[in-house]
Amino acid sequence: MPPGEFELIARYFTRAPRRSAVALGVGDDCALLAPAPGMELAVTTDLLIEGRHFLASVPPERLGHKALAVNLSDLAACGAEPLAFTLALAMPAADERFLAGFAQGLFALAEAHGVDLVGGDTTAGPLALAITAFGQVPAGAALRRSGARAGDELWVSGTLGDARLALELFRGRVALGAEELEAVRRAMECPVPRVALGIALRGVASAAIDLSDGLVGDLGHILRRSGVGARVERDVLPRSAALARQDEALQHECLLAGGDDYELLFTAPAARHDAVRAAARAAGVAVTRIGRIEAGTQLRIVDAQGAAVALRWQGFDHFAPAGLPAGPAAASPAAPGNTGADAGR
Amino acid sequence: MPPGEFELIARYFTRAPRRSAVALGVGDDCALLAPAPGMELAVTTDLLIEGRHFLASVPPERLGHKALAVNLSDLAACGAEPLAFTLALAMPAADERFLAGFAQGLFALAEAHGVDLVGGDTTAGPLALAITAFGQVPAGAALRRSGARAGDELWVSGTLGDARLALELFRGRVALGAEELEAVRRAMECPVPRVALGIALRGVASAAIDLSDGLVGDLGHILRRSGVGARVERDVLPRSAALARQDEALQHECLLAGGDDYELLFTAPAARHDAVRAAARAAGVAVTRIGRIEAGTQLRIVDAQGAAVALRWQGFDHFAPAGLPAGPAAASPAAPGNTGADAGR
Repeated sequence: MPPGEFELIARYFTRAPRRSAVALGVGDDCALLAPAPGMELAVTTDLLIEGRHFLASVPPERLGHKALAVNLSDLAACGAEPLAFTLALAMPAADERFLAGFAQGLFALAEAHGVDLVGGDTTAGPLALAITAFGQVPAGAALRRSGARAGDELWVSGTLGDARLALELFRGRVALGAEELEAVRRAMECPVPRVALGIALRGVASAAIDLSDGLVGDLGHILRRSGVGARVERDVLPRSAALARQDEALQHECLLAGGDDYELLFTAPAARHDAVRAAARAAGVAVTRIGRIEAGTQLRIVDAQGAAVALRWQGFDHFAPAGLPAGPAAASPAAPGNTGADAGR
Repeated sequence: MPPGEFELIARYFTRAPRRSAVALGVGDDCALLAPAPGMELAVTTDLLIEGRHFLASVPPERLGHKALAVNLSDLAACGAEPLAFTLALAMPAADERFLAGFAQGLFALAEAHGVDLVGGDTTAGPLALAITAFGQVPAGAALRRSGARAGDELWVSGTLGDARLALELFRGRVALGAEELEAVRRAMECPVPRVALGIALRGVASAAIDLSDGLVGDLGHILRRSGVGARVERDVLPRSAALARQDEALQHECLLAGGDDYELLFTAPAARHDAVRAAARAAGVAVTRIGRIEAGTQLRIVDAQGAAVALRWQGFDHFAPAGLPAGPAAASPAAPGNTGADAGR
């Protein structure tokens, strides 16, 4: 007989809180958080379902990492400093090997960012994870989706499209060498939340979002909330060496509609160009200027000659029938949605 | 083709926040909460899975109510004033009739308590709901599980066991008249979180927990966290007329190990007896003194003659194989676990 739920959870998920902002951690009906004076509490939640957001074959360590990373990425997009998180976990059975690996990946990332697990819930059921993460940001300083203005420069961190390339690899559409395979698989399974960059962009960026559903879809959220348009230079979109070796059509698909990138997409006044560069240097993250915010409501993707290219891709819709192919690839990952995607969530 | 996820969610789940503590609601990467000065933020999370925590046959309105109610019940057990919540929802398909009913039940309870939906996530998957709820409580005033002291009186709100009686009804173990059937089914599907009582008990109760896993199991959490024992008078446990008509063995099982009660179990110094009565009157909730906290670590259940009765029941363990019978009844509801059950979550 497997150990009971309580004992099992206690073994893997009880750690004393270390943040002074955590007045009471696990072990009561509620956790108690006390943001520093003058700080607002940023809250985000993401739900990950096996076969939809991750493959059954994902190593538990990486799943633990990713479940928290996608939430820290949402905090980063608000410029919030991560404090704590809760974990709700459904599993078919109390699988200790899974829990041990999951906890290892989860807490490695949590410790890297100094965040405490402050509560949660566990139950039997199809494998599903819901994490709610908390951060703090000075009142009024949070980066929002609604602040982009015509004339602002449009920026993105890191490189785009590798997670999608990994998905195409699992689908059998492309083949990669062992080293590239591991690199793109890491991009899909171990995204790095851009927390330091988000904090450094407070007071610099005019709007920000994290890229979970693909550049075109997520940029659309900024444009709609801000009431503006944009021009994106397709050929300057930053990409890895592995992606740059693929055929052009696949590159464009991965770059523009890839999803699961967890890079920051943000805007800043052109006059703050140097401040953006300085923030990126301070955070140790590469950033690329990929276009400009324009008056109107159009999103134009242009090629190197400045000619508009057709837009075949939209943001990922978890219920659209067009989504993933049937068969094994139906168990392909999709990007967890953001809290408050323009959907009003 | 069903409406896309974003449109569907926008239709049912977008409401402007009304709380001043909600600085930014749905529609961005994070929500922003600003508890009043001197307040700590209480956080709790519960995960509900179809076939485990609710029957597929539950009306969506009641499921919406219950999903939020179990979280508000955790806030009540801390004496916190509810402010806001997030919702993560997985559904096999975008079922508009389900969403409409679910939203109706959810928001009816939310509006009754003045809480705002501030963010969430939706995806395809087996039906599962994770709600994280936020409340505020003056710094240092939260009711905890750890404050019970020898000599304290032990109290419970409302009546116990009806949700379990409803479960036995669905299992075919008992038969009830139509009126009683509806009453116990309401107890199971539409629990009333004791929010006003929890707030009224600030500064009066020495420890509190909400009853989700059954009296014996949840009292055990208070005893272990407080390092005390207790004596519970079985025959004064408050019960409905419907339960009082059942045979004694079933009554005792429902009262002591029922689960899903969502009443408050709390302790208070004997000197605060009248203050407890006054708090209950102010909150409009019946309370019953059911025993006393004792030195030591034993939990003794005694009959009307003061003789100890054997304890056959433990709190519900979501992974224990002993749980629910196979067949249709395997799809019977179980109580969602509390945030931070003694398990360390």
